[in-house]
Amino acid sequence: MNIDRTKKVVGVDLGGTTFTVGVMDFEGNVLSRLDTDTPVEDGPNAVMNKIVEYIDMAIVKAGLTGKDILGVGLGAPGILDVDKGINIFSPNLKWHNVDMVSPIKNRFNVPVFIENDVRVAALGERRFGAGKGKKYMIFIALGTGIGSGIIINGELFRGSIGGGGEIGHMVIDSNGPKCNCGNYGCFEALAAGPSMVARAEKAIKSGLETKIFELADRDISKITPALIYKAAKMGDKVALDVFRETSYYLGLGLVTLTTVFNPECIIVGGGIAKSWDILMPPAIQMVKTRSFPGSRDVVEIIPAELGDSAGMIGACVLVMEKLEKGISAS
Amino acid sequence: MNIDRTKKVVGVDLGGTTFTVGVMDFEGNVLSRLDTDTPVEDGPNAVMNKIVEYIDMAIVKAGLTGKDILGVGLGAPGILDVDKGINIFSPNLKWHNVDMVSPIKNRFNVPVFIENDVRVAALGERRFGAGKGKKYMIFIALGTGIGSGIIINGELFRGSIGGGGEIGHMVIDSNGPKCNCGNYGCFEALAAGPSMVARAEKAIKSGLETKIFELADRDISKITPALIYKAAKMGDKVALDVFRETSYYLGLGLVTLTTVFNPECIIVGGGIAKSWDILMPPAIQMVKTRSFPGSRDVVEIIPAELGDSAGMIGACVLVMEKLEKGISAS
Repeated sequence: MNIDRTKKVVGVDLGGTTFTVGVMDFEGNVLSRLDTDTPVEDGPNAVMNKIVEYIDMAIVKAGLTGKDILGVGLGAPGILDVDKGINIFSPNLKWHNVDMVSPIKNRFNVPVFIENDVRVAALGERRFGAGKGKKYMIFIALGTGIGSGIIINGELFRGSIGGGGEIGHMVIDSNGPKCNCGNYGCFEALAAGPSMVARAEKAIKSGLETKIFELADRDISKITPALIYKAAKMGDKVALDVFRETSYYLGLGLVTLTTVFNPECIIVGGGIAKSWDILMPPAIQMVKTRSFPGSRDVVEIIPAELGDSAGMIGACVLVMEKLEKGISAS
Repeated sequence: MNIDRTKKVVGVDLGGTTFTVGVMDFEGNVLSRLDTDTPVEDGPNAVMNKIVEYIDMAIVKAGLTGKDILGVGLGAPGILDVDKGINIFSPNLKWHNVDMVSPIKNRFNVPVFIENDVRVAALGERRFGAGKGKKYMIFIALGTGIGSGIIINGELFRGSIGGGGEIGHMVIDSNGPKCNCGNYGCFEALAAGPSMVARAEKAIKSGLETKIFELADRDISKITPALIYKAAKMGDKVALDVFRETSYYLGLGLVTLTTVFNPECIIVGGGIAKSWDILMPPAIQMVKTRSFPGSRDVVEIIPAELGDSAGMIGACVLVMEKLEKGISAS
């Protein structure tokens, strides 16, 4: 299919709290961007209507009209049927079987594509961020959980029913703590944000003195990974211990990923990755010494470049890549 | 490329102790098969010459001549440069930078393809064994180590430099024993044959009574996984405990593979898989309860069907698939 590359695409990064809409050209320029609250409590119709409204506004803000738009991409949390354009189940959005495509298609009459939010972020980083030109790449989002988008031989890896890449639930410690998923010792139970907070809480409850507690106004419920990082930067011993333990488990997970996937690079993003200077060097050291020979020598572990734009940009890239392959939308 | 499907292909499964040569048609019939010793001590030239000689004999045994052969495939252990046809390094064969293609190509003047031995076994099981028609599949060889061949979207997964699928070195227990690779808590250090033998030895040295010791003629160095299985079938408590522990770690590894790869099936082969009735049910139960939802519901964990022919048949399939895709050989 011949694509008119002077035209533009729209990307939507839908989260349970906020969503972002952006308009991009094929060179990677973001022509407009809007951020707003997701009205989850008003139900799926209200959310989809607001998305349509904001797409309209983003197109106008970019000085364009609907005729300039080749397609719309949506990145969303949850289990998606990307062929049918349905969000089967999303705890964050409180959605069951929501049609994410028709409301947008009906309004703009262009192809509409949906994909898991972390996977579209991986597409964004690969085309316009830290993973340019990579054919074997893993993008990791380190936050409340640990998600991934995996590129294999240049293609997004989805698995047989779209469950591929759930790296947060790899077992890395058979005696590890219980995870939200019901299993024990999962990667995200040991290396995501809540595990850091739990380590800090445990230290405080055991009576250890730490700046973390002061920074949290002596309210244990106010502890966040960002506060722990702040304390660690001040040289606080407890905070540094929290990071040491978190880096260790993060490193173990990265060792397994490097060994199993033999990627050219692992791109690490998400809120927790902002603590890169303390969190990542020990984890990278583990990868470089404990992963399988060969694979450990080639892998680069690098920070994401697109920040909180990765999802919106990736949703735009989803459209570009589908159209470039001549794939028609659902 | 148009292929004459009335012609045949040759497959070689090269191991450090023996090698197998077979001739197959495109329908999956093995027309001839020869097994012989690998003269590793005589060096790579002697091995390659013997392979050429046995290919010749296998063709004759099938009632054919060189003109009936479309191509030759070789499955071999070690790190391979499949594009250049070189075995870069194989501890089993004691090889460094051995050209595996030219000696065969010079003699038969047909395309010659090489690939890692476990990966070709996966190709064999996918086309003519337990994985027929599967697009997302993991073949696991459980033996002295744990190797895999992974099929993603119908294609063999190799990783960026051919190191992909080294599942034996996933970390599944951060406090686990040291592995041959230098890391700790690797999947194969906890679930391969030597881990079973080590568990039995430990029990015997601690003074526990077990039929394993009698079956090994009271010589601890003679304990094998097969003997432990025999004792377990007799109801021996120590042997059953060895299996219980091995199944547990095997299950943990399979949980991670199911969660990360979301395959349609995991096919388990190799010597240890012969203990299926005792080893596998608890491991499968773990996969079905502890893997990520969705993925755990669809995955089937099934025994390999091709036995010790998987490598040879897979080497034949390697040729068929390369020719079907119109890929020319190195």
